[in-house]
Amino acid sequence: MNKTAEQIKVIAFDIFGTVVDWHGCVSREVSAMNLGVDAGEFALAWRAGYKPAMQAVMDKGEWIILDVLHRRILDQVLDDFGLATLGETERSHLNQVWHRLDPWPDSVEGLTRLKSRYIICTLSNGNIGLLTDMAKKAGLPWDCILSAENFNKYKPHADTYRGVVSTFAAEPGQVMLAAAHHSDLEHARNCGLETAYIERPFEYGRDNPKPVAPWSANTLHTTSIVDLAEQMGC
Amino acid sequence: MNKTAEQIKVIAFDIFGTVVDWHGCVSREVSAMNLGVDAGEFALAWRAGYKPAMQAVMDKGEWIILDVLHRRILDQVLDDFGLATLGETERSHLNQVWHRLDPWPDSVEGLTRLKSRYIICTLSNGNIGLLTDMAKKAGLPWDCILSAENFNKYKPHADTYRGVVSTFAAEPGQVMLAAAHHSDLEHARNCGLETAYIERPFEYGRDNPKPVAPWSANTLHTTSIVDLAEQMGC
Repeated sequence: MNKTAEQIKVIAFDIFGTVVDWHGCVSREVSAMNLGVDAGEFALAWRAGYKPAMQAVMDKGEWIILDVLHRRILDQVLDDFGLATLGETERSHLNQVWHRLDPWPDSVEGLTRLKSRYIICTLSNGNIGLLTDMAKKAGLPWDCILSAENFNKYKPHADTYRGVVSTFAAEPGQVMLAAAHHSDLEHARNCGLETAYIERPFEYGRDNPKPVAPWSANTLHTTSIVDLAEQMGC
Repeated sequence: MNKTAEQIKVIAFDIFGTVVDWHGCVSREVSAMNLGVDAGEFALAWRAGYKPAMQAVMDKGEWIILDVLHRRILDQVLDDFGLATLGETERSHLNQVWHRLDPWPDSVEGLTRLKSRYIICTLSNGNIGLLTDMAKKAGLPWDCILSAENFNKYKPHADTYRGVVSTFAAEPGQVMLAAAHHSDLEHARNCGLETAYIERPFEYGRDNPKPVAPWSANTLHTTSIVDLAEQMGC
């Protein structure tokens, strides 16, 4: 048992891209709708609207759940792709795709192993209902679902990382954030959390591999959640 | 499949007394400490301090997690039972007993069956960390842990019942509260939720059986969570 495994009590997981494959699932659903658009590009455009939309809400000091933001962005992307005539039923169904995302192949096994020793929870900008639906469909065995919705702030606001620490009455160094995004981990580290990077080279699709090089500042660098479980002694 | 089972999407459970046996567990731990007090009476006194303590916090418009309230009440009860000299280590450990409560014998089976068809979540005044620790130790298979802490209001404030409804983007009639307390159910009903009473005649100990007669206003009357699963088609 290494020192990190000894000290950690809670592992909080980023979700979109880290535990589930948003690009693959959104692309497949859009493709199946036969809308005559490049489904992979459509997925990228939808996701690209996410950070600016959150920032705009934060700048106004407001709080809006991600389901509502996803829908606003979707409506804009449909316009941009020349699909302004798509009906309400189809829009509403498509917006729920984020509740139906499939896990990466290693996610369920890795989480199940980690759960035997640690509290495992989500820490996502997805709302609680979205994360609950996703967990139920995908079989993600969370001990607890925590969301930006618990703190009325989106990541990377410090209140979210500190919120996990205080929820479990832990010290910051007893909590680890696991994510496929170095920036998320960097913000967590600035709040005193330990960090585990998870390589997800195809988060943006097979055609758009992303760099997954280690950052030395992270506590752990892993190739999958199963690898994280191995490194954490599970 | 009856009409209720068809319409319900989410079943939220009260916890203390409904899913877990607080009196039995607190009594056993107090008894094992050999403090020279009536352990059953001690447990009752500790629990009796809970509603007035919550009310006092609400009256001030404040919000304090239950772990902190439990500790304040414990310190008072120790004084009242002539145990003012009990040390900090023992107090702190004893206060965590609420994280370690055992389920009633039917709870895990009943919840597991209900989970196959419904979203099952907690709705308790216990804080999220407490409920997570409890679920992990007792094997309670929640899809989601919701707490007064999510809404910064204690039950029976309407924000808590309505909060479950909005968390899952449901209609009030798609959510059922299951509880061993008619008053909790009554408040939920006033917010439009369906209600299931669960008989727990020995919530206050074998020596203090409580009445468990049906109230006709409840949607369902059940003898256990397994019975609830049966009645809900699981």
